[in-house]
Formats: sequence, C-alpha cells, structure tokens
Amino acid sequence: MRKTLLLAALLTAAPLAAQLPPPKPGDLPSPAEIVAKAPKADWHAIDRNDLLVLDLAPDARGKPRRVVIQLLPPPFSQGWVGNIRKLAAAHWWDGLAVVRVQDNYVTQWGDPDGEDKVKARALPKGLVEVPQDEYVAYAFDPSLIDDERYGAKTEKLILERADQVFGRDNSKSRRAFRGDAYAAATLHWNGWQLALEDGKIWPVHCYGMVGVGRDMPPNTGTGAELYTVIGHAPRQLDRNIALVGRIIDGMEHMSSLPRGHGELGFYDPAKGDERVPILSVRLAAEVKDLPAYEYLDTEKASFAKYADARANRRDPFYIRPAGGVDVCNVPVPVRRVQ
Amino acid sequence: MRKTLLLAALLTAAPLAAQLPPPKPGDLPSPAEIVAKAPKADWHAIDRNDLLVLDLAPDARGKPRRVVIQLLPPPFSQGWVGNIRKLAAAHWWDGLAVVRVQDNYVTQWGDPDGEDKVKARALPKGLVEVPQDEYVAYAFDPSLIDDERYGAKTEKLILERADQVFGRDNSKSRRAFRGDAYAAATLHWNGWQLALEDGKIWPVHCYGMVGVGRDMPPNTGTGAELYTVIGHAPRQLDRNIALVGRIIDGMEHMSSLPRGHGELGFYDPAKGDERVPILSVRLAAEVKDLPAYEYLDTEKASFAKYADARANRRDPFYIRPAGGVDVCNVPVPVRRVQ
Repeated sequence: MRKTLLLAALLTAAPLAAQLPPPKPGDLPSPAEIVAKAPKADWHAIDRNDLLVLDLAPDARGKPRRVVIQLLPPPFSQGWVGNIRKLAAAHWWDGLAVVRVQDNYVTQWGDPDGEDKVKARALPKGLVEVPQDEYVAYAFDPSLIDDERYGAKTEKLILERADQVFGRDNSKSRRAFRGDAYAAATLHWNGWQLALEDGKIWPVHCYGMVGVGRDMPPNTGTGAELYTVIGHAPRQLDRNIALVGRIIDGMEHMSSLPRGHGELGFYDPAKGDERVPILSVRLAAEVKDLPAYEYLDTEKASFAKYADARANRRDPFYIRPAGGVDVCNVPVPVRRVQ
Repeated sequence: MRKTLLLAALLTAAPLAAQLPPPKPGDLPSPAEIVAKAPKADWHAIDRNDLLVLDLAPDARGKPRRVVIQLLPPPFSQGWVGNIRKLAAAHWWDGLAVVRVQDNYVTQWGDPDGEDKVKARALPKGLVEVPQDEYVAYAFDPSLIDDERYGAKTEKLILERADQVFGRDNSKSRRAFRGDAYAAATLHWNGWQLALEDGKIWPVHCYGMVGVGRDMPPNTGTGAELYTVIGHAPRQLDRNIALVGRIIDGMEHMSSLPRGHGELGFYDPAKGDERVPILSVRLAAEVKDLPAYEYLDTEKASFAKYADARANRRDPFYIRPAGGVDVCNVPVPVRRVQ
C-alpha cells in the first residue's frame, strides 16, 4: 500500500466515475502524464544566458550540490538582474555562504560579514540602485496601454486569456485564476507565474522563486544577498521586494538544509549552527558541464491541459476534483534536455 | 544589511506612511509582535491527550529529533484518529522509518516493508475501516443544521464570522476568506484551519498538517502510514484523503530531511538513499519529559488582530500591504508553556 500513496501524478486516466461532479466531461490524465506526453514542440528552450550556477560545498557524504537559477526576463526586475550578472562575473559570492534557513520560509545566502563595515566584502563597481517602482511592471506590450492608469485593456486581455486556459464554460475552473487572495488575477506568461491588479503585473513568491534581500525601505537591495522560498508561498512579500528568478535544478540542496537557530532562522555559530559554504556562483557562460533546460511553453496546448488538470484532478487516486487551484500550485514544468 | 531582510515579523509598528493605500486607518504592529503581546487569557491549552510524540533516530551530529503531533478534535477524522491512538498504544511504529521525502510535497513514514505480504508488520487488532464520507464534516453544532443538505445556516454563520474577523467594512480584507481557489470560504475554528462549501467543512492541507496514506479509492487508509506537508499547500488533496493532525513542535526534523530519489520521492536504497529510523511513537501519556503547549485562541481578539496583520502588513519592512491572505498563510501560533 505504501507506494501508492498520492500516486495520482504518475497514473493513466481512468473512466470518469458517475458520482463525481463534472468540471469537464470525460476522462483526464494526471498533470505528470500530460507533461510526459507533451510533444517536443510544446517545450521551449531556456536561454543559457539567463542561467546562474551556484555550487555549494559537497554534503556530508561528499556529494556535490549544484543549484541552477533561471533569471527573470524583461520587463521584470532587470535592474537587479543586471547587478546579479555583474556580481557573478566578478565571482563575488565565491567563498561566501548560506547564512539563513528559516523553516517554511526562506533559505538565504550572501556575505556572513555583510553587516560588519570592516569585514564586509566590497561590492563590484557599477551596481545600480533600483527604485521600488520596479517591483512591478506595467504591461506586457506598450501598445496595449489604453489609458492613463496603464493597463485596463491589458487586464481585460489577460482575464480573457485566463478564460481560454481554464475554460469559459466552467465557473469553478475560472476560480483558478479569479480566486486569488492577493491580486485581482494570476496567470502564467512566458514560462512564469504572475499576478495582476490595477494594470500592474508582478512575479509572485512561489516555492523556489529567488528574491533580493534588502534593508528597510526605501532600500531595495543590490542583489548581493539572495533568498529562495522553501515553504508555503509568502505572497505578502509580492510587490514589497524584488524577485529575480527561480531555481530550476537542485532545489533540494536549498530546501533540505538544516534550519538556523538564530533570530529569523539565521545560522548562529554560538548555537551550534554551521553555515553552508558557497564554492562559486557563475554565469552559465563560464560553466562547461551544464545541461540544456526547457520549460513547458505556457502558451501551448499541453500547458493549458496541464494547468486544467492541476485544478481538476481526475486521475484514479482522486475522488473529488478541487475545481480550482492557486497560481503557486501550478508550477511551470522544467526538464533537462537529454 | 543581512539581518534586516524580511525582518518585518519582529519589529514594532511604525507611523503609517501617507502614500500607502489604507486597508485600515492607523498603525499595525507585525503579526509576531501581536502574538508576543497577546495576554495569557488569549492562549488556549492544548489537551495533552491529543499529543503524539515521534522520536526519530538522532541526527548525524548525535542530536535528538523529537516531533510532536497534535491530533484533530471532533468532528474531524475521528475514525482514523482512533486507529492512530491504537497504533501508538501498541508501539506499532517503533523501529519503522521515514520512507519518503518528496521535495515541495510530503515527508511520509510507516513500514518500509508494508507492500511485502510476508515481511509487513502486522497491524494491531481493532482498527476500523473509515468511509470516504468522513473526509469532511457537516456542521460544528448539530443545532445549526437547518435543512436536509445540512449546513446552509452554518455556512451563513461562518461567513458572518469571517466578516467579523477580517472586518465588515473592508472588501479587500474580506478577500482573505472569500478569495480561496479551492472552497467557497475558509476560516479558523477551535485552533484549526478549515475550508467550507456546500454545507461541508473540512481541514486543509497546510504546511505541517499530518494526513493518512492510502491505496486507491475506496480505500481510505488505516492511519499506519502517515505524511506531513513540507511545501506549498497541496490543497488538491483536501476532501480526497484524511487529515488527522499537525506538527506543533520539531517540524524542522521532517522538513529538512534529505529528499528521496526513488519514484515519487520514496527513499531508494539502491540509489544511495538511507531511510530515517523511527525510535518510537508514543501517546503523550507514556512520555515523561514533554512540555505543555498552548495555541493562540482563534476565538479571541489577539488572533483576529494577528490574522488581520497577516493580510495587511503595516510593519516598517512593508511598503504595500497585500490586502488579503490565504488560509495556509495564517498558521495558528503554538507555543511551549514555560
């Protein structure tokens, strides 16, 4: 019985049981099955130039711990992304460490001596200060802007797209996008999870997303101090802090680290915590043995089918489809290219 | 700068900046500050008889790993909870193991030989088979039942309560309860996170909740195989599987375990995975050195203030309150009693 717990994701479709409420007529395969069967044309190459490779020191058993981060594309967070490229090119993080692991919240890395003006490692030249405004973007395409507030038309367009993805005829499924506690709507665009309100669009704090540590506002952080989400999506941080990317490989090396016992989960050597050393952080151009990656194209039919199945589980393990899903429960599938 | 990242939770309230949109007039302290200042009368003792104590083998550095689980009260899942009490009383889990750790999903424990009819450990006598109907409950109080479908009146009552908690005059705050992708409404009741629809009420799969592994339906599991949520809330499991409690202490010992490399994150010794041994699982009555625990009473003013602050962060770190929150982002504070 053990191996079948929560097995739905890997099983084939079964006939629809008569007593189930029908979000869709007919059978549905599981999300994982849809992804496994998606044609090559429904996958989109991830640009190697957007990848950052973080190597932690090997684990206690000597195994390497490599983490691959995909940086956000325009129009999101490009000031910070540019800083991060400069920091990586300067090998700035080499020999620094994971400094904080707070359970159900974040793993954070940077300079353990960052607060000590004497010991802190100097930042490379040319980093920019990015204003708070850039926590959000205003429109995917400037031609969509139709009024002073920017984006009423865009918003309508996106909500229509949401209807297309989750089904116009199904009010329960539409809750998938409409029933968000933090924004008017959420959507997947260009391979990313986004939220939308008042004509503004922003990336959201889902599991594995990478963001920029900062001081009190109006400080927005440089990008030298980064964190990734290792628990339930802390969406209250959306629009309050810059997101710059997501972990697409090696997430377990961040999420399974020992938790810190200092304030806010910072590692406290006085309490027996040991910081986890960073060997290096490199732009992919400097890394020889990196595989290629693809994401399931969020504009293609396979993704729409996958998202619908995440909202309406019809595979044999489930007796009751939820009829909805939140944006962070529809992660964008990413795979290594063989 | 490092120690101030995401520091909001521990800071005192600051004057409301003029440019912020006003979900509430005036200043708000952080959620953690509200909890820290809650009067003793706003805390509620957790019944020691509802506690289960799971001791994993010590970690690589020899530190003990104790996990404390609080079992769900009536009217939820009492068939499985009864089985779990019997299994613990029989010391059934002693010497078994954590068998699965799937990143951003679940840590699961039970009998590694459970699928082997010869090697599987025999279950104690007297376990009951619980029907699928009991994944949900119908009303908090039978006197509230007002029609054949059970609960239209209850639902109204609960939505009114939601209004009371999050504020009648604030449509954005009400999204906290109304904007749920998986149910008509969510709420906190008697110290637990619940969802509601069509007159039915059920516990939800938030981080740290404990559920019952099962075979394909109509099997509902005995309670011998358990899991806890270690990632973003997999709410699609709600109403499809029994929840029986939550981890109130030692969660990090479950969430930071190495991930499994077999199918669905099961530990696969052939791939170098090592299962984590369980020393014992005991009802609290058999444990001598267990502290007492309290939760922040979800019926009291401090909790309402805390929940509101989770939805509307006004502490100095934040520049933009979300104006809403999902039920799993409002965990019920639990503390050891000194």
